[in-house]
Amino acid sequence: MKRTLGVCYYPEHWPEAQWEEDAARMAALGLTWVRIGEFAWARMEPVPGRYDWDWLDRAIETLGRHGLKVVLGTPTATPPRWMLDRHPDMLAVDAQGRPRGFGSRRHYDFSHRGYRGDCARIVQAMAERYGRNPHVAAWQTDNEYACHDTVLSYSPAALAAFRDWCAQRYQSTDALNRAWGNVFWSMDYDRFDDIGLPNLTVTEANPAHVMAFRRFASDEVVSFNRLQTEIIRRFSDAPIAHNYMGRITDFDHFDVGADLDIASWDSYPLGFLSDRLEASPEHKRRFLRQGDPDLQAFHHDLYRAVGRGRWWIMEQQPGPVNWAPYNPDPLPGMARLWAWEAFAHGAEAVCYFRWRQAPFAQEQMHAGLLRPDSVPAPAHDEAMTVVQELAGLPDQGTAKADVGLVFDYASAWAWQTQPQGRDFDYFRLVFHIYKGLRRLGLNVDILPPDTADLSAYPLVLAPGVATLSEPLLAALAAHRGQSIIGPRSNAKTVEFATPVPLPPNLPGLDATVMRVESLPPDVPVPLVGGGNLLHWREKVETSGDVLERAEDGFAALIGAGGLHYLAGWPDETALDRILTAACGRAGLQVEMLPEGLRRRDSDTHRFWFNYNPVAVEWAGVTIPAAGVHWVAL
Amino acid sequence: MKRTLGVCYYPEHWPEAQWEEDAARMAALGLTWVRIGEFAWARMEPVPGRYDWDWLDRAIETLGRHGLKVVLGTPTATPPRWMLDRHPDMLAVDAQGRPRGFGSRRHYDFSHRGYRGDCARIVQAMAERYGRNPHVAAWQTDNEYACHDTVLSYSPAALAAFRDWCAQRYQSTDALNRAWGNVFWSMDYDRFDDIGLPNLTVTEANPAHVMAFRRFASDEVVSFNRLQTEIIRRFSDAPIAHNYMGRITDFDHFDVGADLDIASWDSYPLGFLSDRLEASPEHKRRFLRQGDPDLQAFHHDLYRAVGRGRWWIMEQQPGPVNWAPYNPDPLPGMARLWAWEAFAHGAEAVCYFRWRQAPFAQEQMHAGLLRPDSVPAPAHDEAMTVVQELAGLPDQGTAKADVGLVFDYASAWAWQTQPQGRDFDYFRLVFHIYKGLRRLGLNVDILPPDTADLSAYPLVLAPGVATLSEPLLAALAAHRGQSIIGPRSNAKTVEFATPVPLPPNLPGLDATVMRVESLPPDVPVPLVGGGNLLHWREKVETSGDVLERAEDGFAALIGAGGLHYLAGWPDETALDRILTAACGRAGLQVEMLPEGLRRRDSDTHRFWFNYNPVAVEWAGVTIPAAGVHWVAL
Amino acid sequence: MKRTLGVCYYPEHWPEAQWEEDAARMAALGLTWVRIGEFAWARMEPVPGRYDWDWLDRAIETLGRHGLKVVLGTPTATPPRWMLDRHPDMLAVDAQGRPRGFGSRRHYDFSHRGYRGDCARIVQAMAERYGRNPHVAAWQTDNEYACHDTVLSYSPAALAAFRDWCAQRYQSTDALNRAWGNVFWSMDYDRFDDIGLPNLTVTEANPAHVMAFRRFASDEVVSFNRLQTEIIRRFSDAPIAHNYMGRITDFDHFDVGADLDIASWDSYPLGFLSDRLEASPEHKRRFLRQGDPDLQAFHHDLYRAVGRGRWWIMEQQPGPVNWAPYNPDPLPGMARLWAWEAFAHGAEAVCYFRWRQAPFAQEQMHAGLLRPDSVPAPAHDEAMTVVQELAGLPDQGTAKADVGLVFDYASAWAWQTQPQGRDFDYFRLVFHIYKGLRRLGLNVDILPPDTADLSAYPLVLAPGVATLSEPLLAALAAHRGQSIIGPRSNAKTVEFATPVPLPPNLPGLDATVMRVESLPPDVPVPLVGGGNLLHWREKVETSGDVLERAEDGFAALIGAGGLHYLAGWPDETALDRILTAACGRAGLQVEMLPEGLRRRDSDTHRFWFNYNPVAVEWAGVTIPAAGVHWVAL
Repeated sequence: MKRTLGVCYYPEHWPEAQWEEDAARMAALGLTWVRIGEFAWARMEPVPGRYDWDWLDRAIETLGRHGLKVVLGTPTATPPRWMLDRHPDMLAVDAQGRPRGFGSRRHYDFSHRGYRGDCARIVQAMAERYGRNPHVAAWQTDNEYACHDTVLSYSPAALAAFRDWCAQRYQSTDALNRAWGNVFWSMDYDRFDDIGLPNLTVTEANPAHVMAFRRFASDEVVSFNRLQTEIIRRFSDAPIAHNYMGRITDFDHFDVGADLDIASWDSYPLGFLSDRLEASPEHKRRFLRQGDPDLQAFHHDLYRAVGRGRWWIMEQQPGPVNWAPYNPDPLPGMARLWAWEAFAHGAEAVCYFRWRQAPFAQEQMHAGLLRPDSVPAPAHDEAMTVVQELAGLPDQGTAKADVGLVFDYASAWAWQTQPQGRDFDYFRLVFHIYKGLRRLGLNVDILPPDTADLSAYPLVLAPGVATLSEPLLAALAAHRGQSIIGPRSNAKTVEFATPVPLPPNLPGLDATVMRVESLPPDVPVPLVGGGNLLHWREKVETSGDVLERAEDGFAALIGAGGLHYLAGWPDETALDRILTAACGRAGLQVEMLPEGLRRRDSDTHRFWFNYNPVAVEWAGVTIPAAGVHWVAL
Repeated sequence: MKRTLGVCYYPEHWPEAQWEEDAARMAALGLTWVRIGEFAWARMEPVPGRYDWDWLDRAIETLGRHGLKVVLGTPTATPPRWMLDRHPDMLAVDAQGRPRGFGSRRHYDFSHRGYRGDCARIVQAMAERYGRNPHVAAWQTDNEYACHDTVLSYSPAALAAFRDWCAQRYQSTDALNRAWGNVFWSMDYDRFDDIGLPNLTVTEANPAHVMAFRRFASDEVVSFNRLQTEIIRRFSDAPIAHNYMGRITDFDHFDVGADLDIASWDSYPLGFLSDRLEASPEHKRRFLRQGDPDLQAFHHDLYRAVGRGRWWIMEQQPGPVNWAPYNPDPLPGMARLWAWEAFAHGAEAVCYFRWRQAPFAQEQMHAGLLRPDSVPAPAHDEAMTVVQELAGLPDQGTAKADVGLVFDYASAWAWQTQPQGRDFDYFRLVFHIYKGLRRLGLNVDILPPDTADLSAYPLVLAPGVATLSEPLLAALAAHRGQSIIGPRSNAKTVEFATPVPLPPNLPGLDATVMRVESLPPDVPVPLVGGGNLLHWREKVETSGDVLERAEDGFAALIGAGGLHYLAGWPDETALDRILTAACGRAGLQVEMLPEGLRRRDSDTHRFWFNYNPVAVEWAGVTIPAAGVHWVAL
Repeated sequence: MKRTLGVCYYPEHWPEAQWEEDAARMAALGLTWVRIGEFAWARMEPVPGRYDWDWLDRAIETLGRHGLKVVLGTPTATPPRWMLDRHPDMLAVDAQGRPRGFGSRRHYDFSHRGYRGDCARIVQAMAERYGRNPHVAAWQTDNEYACHDTVLSYSPAALAAFRDWCAQRYQSTDALNRAWGNVFWSMDYDRFDDIGLPNLTVTEANPAHVMAFRRFASDEVVSFNRLQTEIIRRFSDAPIAHNYMGRITDFDHFDVGADLDIASWDSYPLGFLSDRLEASPEHKRRFLRQGDPDLQAFHHDLYRAVGRGRWWIMEQQPGPVNWAPYNPDPLPGMARLWAWEAFAHGAEAVCYFRWRQAPFAQEQMHAGLLRPDSVPAPAHDEAMTVVQELAGLPDQGTAKADVGLVFDYASAWAWQTQPQGRDFDYFRLVFHIYKGLRRLGLNVDILPPDTADLSAYPLVLAPGVATLSEPLLAALAAHRGQSIIGPRSNAKTVEFATPVPLPPNLPGLDATVMRVESLPPDVPVPLVGGGNLLHWREKVETSGDVLERAEDGFAALIGAGGLHYLAGWPDETALDRILTAACGRAGLQVEMLPEGLRRRDSDTHRFWFNYNPVAVEWAGVTIPAAGVHWVAL
């Protein structure tokens, strides 16, 4: 597979006279892809029912004439103002009961059937017109589902749809009441139409109610997206993608991905470091202008799984952005490094966002490959370097992974619903484990929660999976390698009850979680072997082998055969030891990498990435700050 | 009085087939009491007006057959979903104007007359059926009034009732305007129906308005509760209790208690330490798995006063709970220690919450005496130890107290209404003083604010009492012992104005608070004798004796005869000195206890409680971590 | 100009029998001015349309009889309760959509036309009655516009008025759409009546939309005020003032000031230090009882500009207040020092707030010159000292300033709308620069953003001015002295777009801001010459002289002739060096003052103010804590 670069472009933002030169410069830079259209509904349909495609025809033609391939986005994330006249109740409602108004984007409720109808109409009109256009080589549905907290809505539309969803799932209120344990506080329902949404309750709502609502909300995103993919496929053979956003767990990306050909994500390493990463102040300071050394890689591995092997970066940060608490300038070289990290993880394409910085509206402080005055910004020339380097390397495939790491969106909902300790977060837990694997230089595959075959993986981990699926339990039973399950895995039934017999109920491992404790971050539980459990620990009865033990005598890591249960959240010291030992048992070679240096293999090369602000000596070479080094395998 | 143990039980949560075995195991453990019923309205009256008592008859019968005594709770804290069809406007409204919805508990407005009617109906039906049942040996009204911030409601029902309350209290708007000082910002009312609730004002509402609303809201709880007690007493001679919650000051517990036979409270030492205690991080870390050494004792003393001598723990934490920011496992021994601390303070009964951990709904992470799989949890065996120890000790009464400490709910409202300094909190102040008394090994009686006779107490304290009542002022004038009043005592009139002559206006003590200052926690006011005033200090003119003076020359403790005024919030160092000196003058023996070790006398024994995570040598013995030691007096 | 003292007084709060003695004591103290009336609408017009002026006639007469001059306030900040019956929709609505209710003050929407009508009516009635009253020597409109966040309202009244404002400004939606860049996310409007207010959008609203709303909201305050001044001038020749509040930037004070004769402000040094000053804990602790050494001076200079030379303090803190997070007692001497700092900056009058502390309602903990029991509070005697000292000094004028510092309210809105970095605040930036100037002993004039003549100023600074006005740009081009523009100056067009060519576009200076970065406070950008840039730095291309350079090679201060661009936010070390060097080039003498000591000249004297809690040796004398020292020039 040939790796390519692209860019996001908004012809509607610029005088038409400028399009030709823009296209020529894109082609000269060596770009392959141009994504357009996803925010232009008001230009496509300025008056309800009156389409204006001419400008878009010419824009696509101009780009195509220069050999550029178009990714055409459906504009459903930005319905025009007139849509509100047609559907005054189409706005989502936040958890405080306030409608979320017009004036930015994503101001729609996934459950509003009227709005869905208009989405189907515009998508069909686009697909009819451009489905066979030779320059339209891919599609994007909507834009960044869930961004700006837009999955959960507490609107009348959502309420009606949720009641239907409950009726279909449970068939009777008796069944629902039993499933949720509504007897607990006289919360029983007599009719599905008595069920409310779980916001603004006096104290916490029933977690089973909340979890049902979270599953419902995710399903609404899936069906909203599927409506579009089914229409597009009727008119086009081009692959369909959606651009997911970083560290968003509000809907099940695997479920949406099942209807797509390509997974893509929008990678903003500096924005995410500032905005959505738990890390020490020292860490945030050190990697301020480079981004966390693992956060991009994690998402690359995640979306490779979501896309069943096919994945892109649809938006790549090129310079300072506008939306994080602090918005520094990337270290010179990072726009190149980030692209190479993606390619090393198997990305087909990396598209920078955006071609030229807009001088107006919300993102006027968001850098592009060009400055607002059309002068190249630093990322422009770094992209050119990447194009040249790509030309000098063979086409590469994805490396065989050393480790499989299960990621389960429903578990993110579960532990948001019931964190039990203030700082227990599913993504944080999984990412903590992932960082441990990266420190050892391992190649990781993210695995969906219904993975049925683990035979490819010498080592498998499944931390924090609230409910282990039947296929995964069977696969674990059949697995010949090493596996580490827990903490807090298989701790709930599908309906969010505590299983009896008590967790974790793993095949062949005698272990019972008697009770758990959540702990403030300043109260570690020391392990005999060094390091600590933090945040969360479980007290387990077991007749299995105890591989790690807390100083208070309770088992921390228990095993039987290759299957292990981890009874707490290990700190870095403990995690490194636990993973190193597991790799040893699994026959995996590890290389403990220095801070900020990371490694990843393609099927032909080994790459090192130096996320540090200083040069590092490693593998016999000096890798400069923000530098990439590779050798053929 | 024989001290007993009990447990909370929810037969409706379990298959009926399990009741018999549960009852047998409770009896075998040596429990006396089983509290049931308080959340089961939907099972008692599944359809409006159609009662189903059969299951409850059988549950009571089963328990009674095993010699267990039942505390029967009225279920008014959890009205069924159908109640909303009858009274769509019965929901309380929060200070932001949002109705507080169905789906958890306590979703009712104390002021809604229609809901009160239905409460009267279900209580009467229960009282008629079970008032003479031989196994029903006590009643509980509702559950944890005020929990989840449910006293203050800004609903139409509350507004209408508040206007009536104002009309009754003030008789004319002229009188109300004068009482509140509404001339201040042209806030006068011409009609009672013009008065609003004091939320969502542009800046702070008139504090007199807020205080009137707080008094009204407390009165509503009192009349809501009285409605139930009056009905129950028509059909039953069994004593009536309510289970108060820890550190709740939103209504006057003395006023509610006047209609009850027994005060009880729900004691969650670890939850409260994590959730509602001001303390240093070091303190919270040290006592994480034991609870604060004084918070339980304070409530024991408080509820002994509220119950006029008769009090219980209705819910005792048995293991980790689910609702605090962090939920650790108690140190082994604490479930025993907590029970003994209660008995040493005169508790008649200690009931653990709950029998078996529920595997479903909101509290599935809340421990019980049994695990969800019916295996005994650690607290089960500690309860058994307590039963055995109780059998070996004589029946005990309450010790005569050394010190009387006034506690006044209205003062909590006053200083929430007008803290003047960000961290001025009435409970915190009183509890700070209480801790000083406990460090000295003193036995304390909490006194209601209208106490008219202080002759039993060598030492009396009244910190932060906004308005000293006439009886209390007379009692202070007549008191022959030592007393320390202040800081911020008698600082307001009943209508929340500043008195002229200026405070504190104490009998026989020439002192005038010229002005006060609230101070950030990092700005101490050093005292000549060592230690500091913190948070709050007053500058006083006086011709009295100055016992403590600040380095800037202002008096800090002023006395005339035995009566003293304390002109600031002393830190621990200053408090220990002030209290030690006062005890000396009062002829009280003190024993400065080491950190975490506490002492309490019954009328026959002296008990020491070691809240530390390590053993302590004291009184000639080694008291282990979480240990209790007692000697006959 | 003779400098005078005054006081705020509320005859309606006190028995009429007390007025005579109060007036006599005011006169005996040497006060000149008494401000009255501004909260008394309910007494002036107890029933709609039925005025009661008798009491006010008598109050004015009593004061006048004692030789006191009255400042008469219009009562429009506190409409009576009955006003809501006339205009139920007159309440402002907060950004969360909640009406801001009756029960405190300022509960009106500036855009409500019906309420404006009633304001015009009461103002006309007052002006007719008192316009020629010999004792009414000045007027005050309303009270503290914007206090309690009352400028921005999201009400139907505001929405309607905003649509009209947009229609008048842009004339067509096409023009508006282009001006705002609404094409960006399909945000175009087809009708002015489709435009909404920029709150409760899903993510950030278009900043151009927000800025238009901010300009509109400021204009509403201006026209609300002008309505009153135009009426008063028809009946009175007395000067008209408004009392602005400290650190309020929500409307353009210059625009309001254009309709007034005198600017005045309400100076609460301790309240502002606690409530609205960014400073280190050490700084806040050191100046807790004195106030920040520069915050008052800054406002003095600002309001001297707003009043075109004529300005007062209408409310001067006399002791502890009631509204800040912490409310300490001023150090003895501060009530005198604060008055002298004002006079040294050219104040005509300083009025203490208030005569006697009220024992009731919201401000009962706010000190006055008298205690509630009419005993003099410390500030009473300090005011007497000031009266005596004023008598011993010649009448003084304002010193010629060394430095002109541009202050622009629209820039405050701009950087609130788009801070880009979490802690970028316009006031904070300008005040940081101002403090640097004060540390050097310089006299500063604040300049409005449309200043057209800079010839009086050897040194001019314009940090953070979002859009430099045409007059100011021309004045800079013509300026023969030194000037320092930036950081972030001229960075936006009037319609809040990024200019192309890129900023700063200064006359005669070749410099292009290529990109900017906002930085966390713990990430400094070191300068070669010592010190750092903090919070904000810009990367500039230039062929100009580089006077300061960052260690990473980028220019930090660039000059051509006397004009300089500052490409970042300097810390104190860097700022002191930059300002000292600029003063050297400008021929200004500087004196680096010790911490907490400040200097200011009148046209005849040089004053030193010691804000420290300890004495300072300086200028050959010992200036005690809270002391003032002056010498003739």
